[in-house]
Amino acid sequence: MIVKIQLADLHPALEDPALNSMNFLNEVAQEYPDAVSLAAGRPYEEFFEFSALHRYLDIFRQHLVDDLGQDPVQVNRTLFQYGRTKGIVHHLVARNLEVDEGIAVDPEAIVVTVGCQEAMFLVLRALRAGPRDVLLAAAPTYVGLTGAARLLDFPVRPVATTDSGVDLADLRDQVHRARAEGLRPRACYLMPDFANPSGTSMSLADRRTLLDLAAEEELLLIEDNPYGLFPATESRRLPTLKALDTNSHVVYLGSFAKTVLPGARVGYVVADQSVADAGGGRGLLADQLAKVKSMVSVNTSPVAQAVVGGVLLAHDCSLVAATVRQRTVYADNLRYLVHGLARRFPAGSSVRWTVPAGGFFVVVTLPFPVDDALLHRSAREYGVLWTPMAHFYGDGVPVHALRLSVSAVTRDDIDRGLGRLAAFVAGEVARREPGPGVR
Amino acid sequence: MIVKIQLADLHPALEDPALNSMNFLNEVAQEYPDAVSLAAGRPYEEFFEFSALHRYLDIFRQHLVDDLGQDPVQVNRTLFQYGRTKGIVHHLVARNLEVDEGIAVDPEAIVVTVGCQEAMFLVLRALRAGPRDVLLAAAPTYVGLTGAARLLDFPVRPVATTDSGVDLADLRDQVHRARAEGLRPRACYLMPDFANPSGTSMSLADRRTLLDLAAEEELLLIEDNPYGLFPATESRRLPTLKALDTNSHVVYLGSFAKTVLPGARVGYVVADQSVADAGGGRGLLADQLAKVKSMVSVNTSPVAQAVVGGVLLAHDCSLVAATVRQRTVYADNLRYLVHGLARRFPAGSSVRWTVPAGGFFVVVTLPFPVDDALLHRSAREYGVLWTPMAHFYGDGVPVHALRLSVSAVTRDDIDRGLGRLAAFVAGEVARREPGPGVR
Repeated sequence: MIVKIQLADLHPALEDPALNSMNFLNEVAQEYPDAVSLAAGRPYEEFFEFSALHRYLDIFRQHLVDDLGQDPVQVNRTLFQYGRTKGIVHHLVARNLEVDEGIAVDPEAIVVTVGCQEAMFLVLRALRAGPRDVLLAAAPTYVGLTGAARLLDFPVRPVATTDSGVDLADLRDQVHRARAEGLRPRACYLMPDFANPSGTSMSLADRRTLLDLAAEEELLLIEDNPYGLFPATESRRLPTLKALDTNSHVVYLGSFAKTVLPGARVGYVVADQSVADAGGGRGLLADQLAKVKSMVSVNTSPVAQAVVGGVLLAHDCSLVAATVRQRTVYADNLRYLVHGLARRFPAGSSVRWTVPAGGFFVVVTLPFPVDDALLHRSAREYGVLWTPMAHFYGDGVPVHALRLSVSAVTRDDIDRGLGRLAAFVAGEVARREPGPGVR
Repeated sequence: MIVKIQLADLHPALEDPALNSMNFLNEVAQEYPDAVSLAAGRPYEEFFEFSALHRYLDIFRQHLVDDLGQDPVQVNRTLFQYGRTKGIVHHLVARNLEVDEGIAVDPEAIVVTVGCQEAMFLVLRALRAGPRDVLLAAAPTYVGLTGAARLLDFPVRPVATTDSGVDLADLRDQVHRARAEGLRPRACYLMPDFANPSGTSMSLADRRTLLDLAAEEELLLIEDNPYGLFPATESRRLPTLKALDTNSHVVYLGSFAKTVLPGARVGYVVADQSVADAGGGRGLLADQLAKVKSMVSVNTSPVAQAVVGGVLLAHDCSLVAATVRQRTVYADNLRYLVHGLARRFPAGSSVRWTVPAGGFFVVVTLPFPVDDALLHRSAREYGVLWTPMAHFYGDGVPVHALRLSVSAVTRDDIDRGLGRLAAFVAGEVARREPGPGVR
């Protein structure tokens, strides 16, 4: 007899919209290959070159020999064999954080992970100890966070956001409310810089107030920072929460997907919190995360780490230096898209949009709710793809907004995409107006 | 105020021996760097060469161009960008399974994972739907399985084993017993070929009987096969359960760690089971696992996959062909170790050992219980490392046995290691005999 598996007999997260969101969006993109995509948050591809793989592997190999004193047998062991669970480029990541972010961190507090997604997953797994634990997250929230939490049966409670990031009063309310219900808010997840999907950034004053709040409430903050190196103007970037964090309230998630290449699948977590065991022993949260990692993926591929390590070494560990061209493209595209929106939706139109200080994403608010059926219509009838903002709330409440991305497009794509978007919006508005027969 | 984290406030698995086992063993190895290690299950290192990375990347690139018709932009996108969650070498893995194992499988039923460990983790996450679910596992069990299950709050019930693998009568008993308790045994995990740590293999007759039992009981089997390509003799290998599986009862876990290189961190799962959703839709279990994977690590590094793909392409997708030298080393070492044990522990000695038909591991039974304290003494006073078998039971019951590994050693290591092991055993036996004062 054939084993029959019912979806309902598998983990409940598999029926959750959060886990189907990315699949749905990918499928729509595949279904309409000729549509202009203002949906994908993938990095710009124009600068990829195959030969760079060889170059960066060689640079990292030379680093093992020259700087770490490894002989050929040790080099091969480092790159080919099972290895250190916390990674082999941790010292370069620590240097990068110092150079680019002014974050001083013990390399031992870093766990190099399979992309930032695994970093997120490890942190959530460690923190979700029992049924009383809940996670707070600035809403709208990156679906990768929501999906990982669902897989770990870790309830996520949304925290309101404003045009300048997380609403600090609501955060405090949510912490108190959860505790009053007998629950344990384990941490609050947020992206202070050019957030996905909102595009918002927190002010320096708010960052300091947030850290004070975290100290008062004894709350961990999970800071996710994939876009921080891409401000839209020349103005100085703001310090990350981790750079301002004097008392280890911040678990910092890092990604190389947007700064180096997604295909390395290398990210990391800085977890310098002290963990005390019952016997009075003390260690780093990073070491507990490494124990989780050893059962999820063992170590992160040293070959993939070597590629990222090579890029870091080639630029004196500065990703600000390594991403000059990308930063120009993203900033230029962001300005061009915002300008294009203003041209196509003049003042007085009921269409509004955010003007982010950097990153990949602009949120456009429309006079009607934006759901998956509309995305299909937009792709089929107008040839333009975008992301319904409803995907980032996941509570089933209609949302009158969509997300546009500027990261993987040209100016020409933006022109064509916005022209089609304007036609789509006009079409939808007309379709929703009472027809002549009703008047 | 500094956030204080107590280990007891993190996920309970972090205090479980299963998650600390690998760390403990690594730490002992680091503490005694001059000890001969008959503990490590790592593959033989002598054949690693750095330049091979370049060669295999180039071969895979050429495959994308010549066989899949990709232009340079597409090649770069395949290797550098986010990509297919189920992987980019699935077609080569399917061909490999056909060539080496006679397994015919739809490439769409394969998920390429971050090592076999992630494959295991995804399967366990999908199958553990609620508190009634339990997993059965042939005991002694690979600690990576036990640790992953602990992290997912998935209880593991041991199934007895004999010299020829899982005890089929006990397996049926365990299924019935669990069901009688109102529990759902979701699957049974086992390694039919040269198991870690027992070294045992199932007979062909037992494999067929096991598949019949799975059909009668509607039980999934999770077949893990990292060592199958390493028989110790020229005799034909036995078919895997998956090769004999006509009704999709077997979820097959594959590893390239021992056949290609651990540092790629590439493994896979074959999950061709049909999954029905409430709406009457049907899909593959592989697609559900991919949804889990998208929230654990997104996709497996295409750069790392390309290295493995290059090795497969260079050998017409036969890993039997690719591992001729390794197979000779492992078979030779296994014979040499068994012969060495016979020389040092002659008939009449109370020391016994297994004589596996292949793989990496020999289990030695001693006249006294073997615990972690003894491992420390063996390393410190005798200079030899091995693995206490108690680690593979994890129930706290004393075990009079240790595991020796032949995979990462030379004949000279074996000679020195066994000499020291014999001295250790003699020392322990003498230490446990009543002293003259007692007589």
